[in-house]
Amino acid sequence: MPSISRRGLNMPESPIRKLVPFAEAAIKRGIKIIHLNIGQPDIKTPKVALDAVKNNNLEVLSYSRTEGAESYREKIAGYYANNDIHVAAEDIIVTTGGSEALSFAMGSITDAEDEIIIPEPFYANYNGFANATGIKVVPVVSHIEDNFALPPIEEFEKLITLKTKAILICNPGNPTGYLYSREEIKKLTKIVKNYGLFLVADEVYREFTYDGREHYSIIQEEGLEDHAIIVDSVSKRYSMCGARIGYLVSKNKEVIKTAIKFAQARLSPPTYAQIAAEAALETPKSYFEAVKEEYVARRDILISELSKVEGVVAARPQGAFYCIAQLPIKNADAFAQWLLEEFNVDGETVMVAPAAGFYATAGLGTNQVRIAYVLEKEDLIRAVYILKEALKAYPG
Amino acid sequence: MPSISRRGLNMPESPIRKLVPFAEAAIKRGIKIIHLNIGQPDIKTPKVALDAVKNNNLEVLSYSRTEGAESYREKIAGYYANNDIHVAAEDIIVTTGGSEALSFAMGSITDAEDEIIIPEPFYANYNGFANATGIKVVPVVSHIEDNFALPPIEEFEKLITLKTKAILICNPGNPTGYLYSREEIKKLTKIVKNYGLFLVADEVYREFTYDGREHYSIIQEEGLEDHAIIVDSVSKRYSMCGARIGYLVSKNKEVIKTAIKFAQARLSPPTYAQIAAEAALETPKSYFEAVKEEYVARRDILISELSKVEGVVAARPQGAFYCIAQLPIKNADAFAQWLLEEFNVDGETVMVAPAAGFYATAGLGTNQVRIAYVLEKEDLIRAVYILKEALKAYPG
Repeated sequence: MPSISRRGLNMPESPIRKLVPFAEAAIKRGIKIIHLNIGQPDIKTPKVALDAVKNNNLEVLSYSRTEGAESYREKIAGYYANNDIHVAAEDIIVTTGGSEALSFAMGSITDAEDEIIIPEPFYANYNGFANATGIKVVPVVSHIEDNFALPPIEEFEKLITLKTKAILICNPGNPTGYLYSREEIKKLTKIVKNYGLFLVADEVYREFTYDGREHYSIIQEEGLEDHAIIVDSVSKRYSMCGARIGYLVSKNKEVIKTAIKFAQARLSPPTYAQIAAEAALETPKSYFEAVKEEYVARRDILISELSKVEGVVAARPQGAFYCIAQLPIKNADAFAQWLLEEFNVDGETVMVAPAAGFYATAGLGTNQVRIAYVLEKEDLIRAVYILKEALKAYPG
Repeated sequence: MPSISRRGLNMPESPIRKLVPFAEAAIKRGIKIIHLNIGQPDIKTPKVALDAVKNNNLEVLSYSRTEGAESYREKIAGYYANNDIHVAAEDIIVTTGGSEALSFAMGSITDAEDEIIIPEPFYANYNGFANATGIKVVPVVSHIEDNFALPPIEEFEKLITLKTKAILICNPGNPTGYLYSREEIKKLTKIVKNYGLFLVADEVYREFTYDGREHYSIIQEEGLEDHAIIVDSVSKRYSMCGARIGYLVSKNKEVIKTAIKFAQARLSPPTYAQIAAEAALETPKSYFEAVKEEYVARRDILISELSKVEGVVAARPQGAFYCIAQLPIKNADAFAQWLLEEFNVDGETVMVAPAAGFYATAGLGTNQVRIAYVLEKEDLIRAVYILKEALKAYPG
């Protein structure tokens, strides 16, 4: 019998996946689950995007261009210009989700055994793409005590080797909610220029910034043109995760030329999704204002409720819609499973994402969970109440 | 300035891509181009698929399951059963095009430096995925003289090393149009079982078989359960290349479990496309009969017209909608470029895909081109006429 590859065996499972059978069993027992574990917003997709697909007149659902439809790329450049990010259509490749943009970026700038430095905790799927690409993630620890701010630049410097090809950040961060300041980006700029590295920024939560703070993109940083690669996505921006449309953006012509070769191998991004995403660019400003307002209210309630639970320390997110909370327990994996298997309050329980899966360093984050505040305020209040009762009852 | 990876530099360009600027320049000069170079069918997408998307009632375009929507996978199992291929929903992963299925298969069964044996000429993008995955394509030559039939099994045996993990076939073949017989599949079965290899079959053209011949899938072969992996796609079957929906199918549970981990990293296949593809399964049988009849007529005309051109040798395709033609020239790359740059008949010229890009062995196929017969019969007649005149006029 033929055998599975080592890279297949080493491919990490999603931190949530292990819990799914327990969640399914709970549902079978009639338990209602409040999902704090997934980043699927409940916000409605802009009508203009949904309508564009419903009103399409395609007779042959054909391939689009490898780099994405020309009209769409032009409009994306316009979207960036509105965000004070100045790029041309030819600096943009439309990808199948931000995931594919990341995969093309890794393929274009790293060879097997190369290293990418990433502040941890980080989006768990970075591990999956790194493993699939055969490269090594080198984590640099950020801490809940200072809200997961950028670690001191010396910590990065210590980790740089001849194999280091890039620093990867997620800004604002999933799972931290941390928004890097202009000063932090400037520090990163200096180090990548000094060492001849790429700076890859996953900016899919660009619009989700709170408390009057503004997102500063790595492409806004002068002199970083040859180093900066943006991974972007429409998934969260327009609540259209199922479209699977993202962008890879860089002013480095060699990066774009190379990434297009990876893109050619898979022919084109999905056509219907591009119709939706192109129309989504017409989403009125009021949509984002309402969404932002909603998320700020949700965050405020979540943080305020969590602060009332004894022994819980929560980071204060300034962006995205995630919050890392440290719980007065030893093993969040076991606790999350117990919540589904053994606990309920009047037939209801909560599902959380254990945070250890967001760290590359073994042993870190074991007492933390990621909470996605993509639910109605009342549900968040109820969820934290259940969590509080659970912590009281937990034998572990 | 940071540098591009070796794998990025080595990433092959599509055999057609190099010609695109010349085609664009020709169009600017007012030349009409008949495209024999692309596999984008002109056939209309089934109305039932288009309507399902137009009538969708989604309010939040959310992620689907990683493996594809449950209802869709159940129906896919039904589709296979109708084709006498007996698999369950859990043997199927819905992917973003056949491309992604191939990429997941390669990731699951090979490590860097491993080898996959592929009869050449083969679909050029296999090279791209092999390069991205860090593995080596080991070609075994098939010949236009015998219609690109399976090379003698001893030729495969000679190439097997400790690094060999799989044999990959495309059946019916792109670019050859060759349909492997039951006997040929049995020969492959024997060798993969003897050597403990996987047999990966790209069966995206399953329905496109002519002259009363029937497709025999590797999953129909008894005892091959642990070895067989199908790469499939709805692109050609329902003329919906732009959907980007494919399947990876295997009864080997370890393969599916592993491929799902790769699938998790990219979250989910596109949602709208799954709606279209699920509805496409309701396409009436008459659609396929009409399509098949049309392709047979096109093939017959193409082959008959080509046979009248002096010095041209064309394979006789029994499936798919491609034909490899050998021309009385030295360098098909130069000829294809010349057709666009220098030649026209009353303002019209043709674009062909030089076949060297479909071979891994340097120097093979340099006097061959791939012709996709996805055009109306009159256009095919006109195209071959232009080709004939061009061969007379060609100075190369």
